Amino acid sequence: MNYDLYGKITHKWRVIMKFVIDMMGGDNGLKATIPSMQEFIKKYSDVEYFLVGDINKLSEFNNLKNVHLVASETVLPMDADPLTALKETTSSLMISIKTFLENKCDALISAGSTGALLSASIFKIKRLPNITRPCLITSFPTVKSNKKFVVCDLGANAANTKEELNQFAIMGSLYYSIIYDEKNPRVYLLNNGTEEEKGNDLTKEAHALLSSNNSINFKGNIEAREPLFGDVDVLVTDGFTGNVFLKSVEGTAKAMSSMIKEAFKKNIFTMIGYLFSKSGINGIKNKMDYKNVGGALLLGVNGVVIKAHGSSDARSFSSALLNAYKLTKVDIVNKIKKELE
Amino acid sequence: MNYDLYGKITHKWRVIMKFVIDMMGGDNGLKATIPSMQEFIKKYSDVEYFLVGDINKLSEFNNLKNVHLVASETVLPMDADPLTALKETTSSLMISIKTFLENKCDALISAGSTGALLSASIFKIKRLPNITRPCLITSFPTVKSNKKFVVCDLGANAANTKEELNQFAIMGSLYYSIIYDEKNPRVYLLNNGTEEEKGNDLTKEAHALLSSNNSINFKGNIEAREPLFGDVDVLVTDGFTGNVFLKSVEGTAKAMSSMIKEAFKKNIFTMIGYLFSKSGINGIKNKMDYKNVGGALLLGVNGVVIKAHGSSDARSFSSALLNAYKLTKVDIVNKIKKELE
Repeated sequence: MNYDLYGKITHKWRVIMKFVIDMMGGDNGLKATIPSMQEFIKKYSDVEYFLVGDINKLSEFNNLKNVHLVASETVLPMDADPLTALKETTSSLMISIKTFLENKCDALISAGSTGALLSASIFKIKRLPNITRPCLITSFPTVKSNKKFVVCDLGANAANTKEELNQFAIMGSLYYSIIYDEKNPRVYLLNNGTEEEKGNDLTKEAHALLSSNNSINFKGNIEAREPLFGDVDVLVTDGFTGNVFLKSVEGTAKAMSSMIKEAFKKNIFTMIGYLFSKSGINGIKNKMDYKNVGGALLLGVNGVVIKAHGSSDARSFSSALLNAYKLTKVDIVNKIKKELE
Repeated sequence: MNYDLYGKITHKWRVIMKFVIDMMGGDNGLKATIPSMQEFIKKYSDVEYFLVGDINKLSEFNNLKNVHLVASETVLPMDADPLTALKETTSSLMISIKTFLENKCDALISAGSTGALLSASIFKIKRLPNITRPCLITSFPTVKSNKKFVVCDLGANAANTKEELNQFAIMGSLYYSIIYDEKNPRVYLLNNGTEEEKGNDLTKEAHALLSSNNSINFKGNIEAREPLFGDVDVLVTDGFTGNVFLKSVEGTAKAMSSMIKEAFKKNIFTMIGYLFSKSGINGIKNKMDYKNVGGALLLGVNGVVIKAHGSSDARSFSSALLNAYKLTKVDIVNKIKKELE
């Protein structure tokens, strides 16, 4: 007989996690989420799934033992403002949140509006102790083969205070140490120069505050050019700047990948060159492709809430699901909560 | 007999431009500027050069007819604050500014401290009419073969007001139309989303102001992922965010180039692949290498003041010189000044 995390006798297979999936969110909605979920459910039978959306369009999931279909009526637009979002209680997002709470779920995944997901999570799922604003966090690749760094905030907030940056630094540091098993991660503040006195009012004040925080290994300011070279563990920034950093890196990587593709198409010699070198080149493209990044965790709320890319296709939504799976497995939220208390 | 731009009879060769070069600025100082100037002077004899620095170390330029050596005593540190910079009148930067004014020069090139260059230029060379803050502007490559876009401000300022962003939009638009012969350049505001109501306080207010400005072709907000794909002409942003954008693009391009290099080294097959495809691949690396970018123009002051990369080597300093040459040739400052009046 098997027991799940909550100690109850469950199905024949061992259910250890409960996921809620907002099937309707994102620019591509069901077109992305259905194929992604079909594949994921086959692979991961140790999860109980709650799929929220227009159940008439989810018939392929009807008779699966570890899947529950939950009906929602509307879909929030991608630019939904937080207040409207909270009021629209029949939307796929708000029904997802309700389902998450009622079933004591572990993770919630949505490609819908960031602002709506943030405010609904804060008001319903609630924040972790001593955290005023959650942040979005995810891992970035570097030139060093297995080395990654994390950035927080990637855009949960449009503006932040120095105290919030300090909270991001603490949570980001805990996150990194759990995920990458690194005791004393190096924390840097994203700035327009490395010197202590550089920056705008926010980064100058944040630098002073982070320097006096003994619970983190703060190494000072860093410019946006450096983190991809592998000597940063946690990059702290306000949500607006972090969003520009994320999208600049994504855009440049995508632009270069597309140039490489064109370069190989040029003539018969370059095409032959491609045949010889494609494994390595495609490896780089994959490494730098944000579709494989797996969405970002909304760090600072009481559950694994994953924001998948708004423009998610099936592949990137699958990465977000996998990210949720891994983060739930390591019990990230409870571990961080314990440290914050 | 030949006349220079100021109507005076000059040397046997036709001198049509006057450049001042701060030989001491930047992380590499003379190591970068000497080889770069040696080559440039050979190529461009239609320029009268004023080289400012430690003249004992500039003996290779002693007997060149179109070169003047001007002695300076000190070098400002890269993190010099604006007030100290202005007071240190014997520094290579302040002597360069003085030389620029006394000889009615066209262009000044320095790889020294941005803050010092900005404040010295504002106080001594003076601003263009109706401009409160100058901005740094330069061109970025895109995936479309000859298409570029410009970004302003790249970091002359650590913070800006909406009125300053509006000035950047006007000047950036004029700059683009002169350089790329494009009548109605498309101006976008860098933001964390495309919708009108997105952003922090500054971008929200700037969006409203830019929308009501009939002298520019304002197309709205854009995310940092998009400009490299070729549908933007002028990207407007505050100096802090622009600096993060610039360095994120640079860093990602450099990281990917280094990954590509590694990928081709993997085994004998990938090395053969490289032989067949190297022209195209190296073309991309060059296109995306900031060392070829040519520094940034300090747009909004009364002269072609070029900020070369602080970490300039000889190659990138040469690009900055070439940029100064081209911008002076098209008489960029006087043309923009006329429009602003």
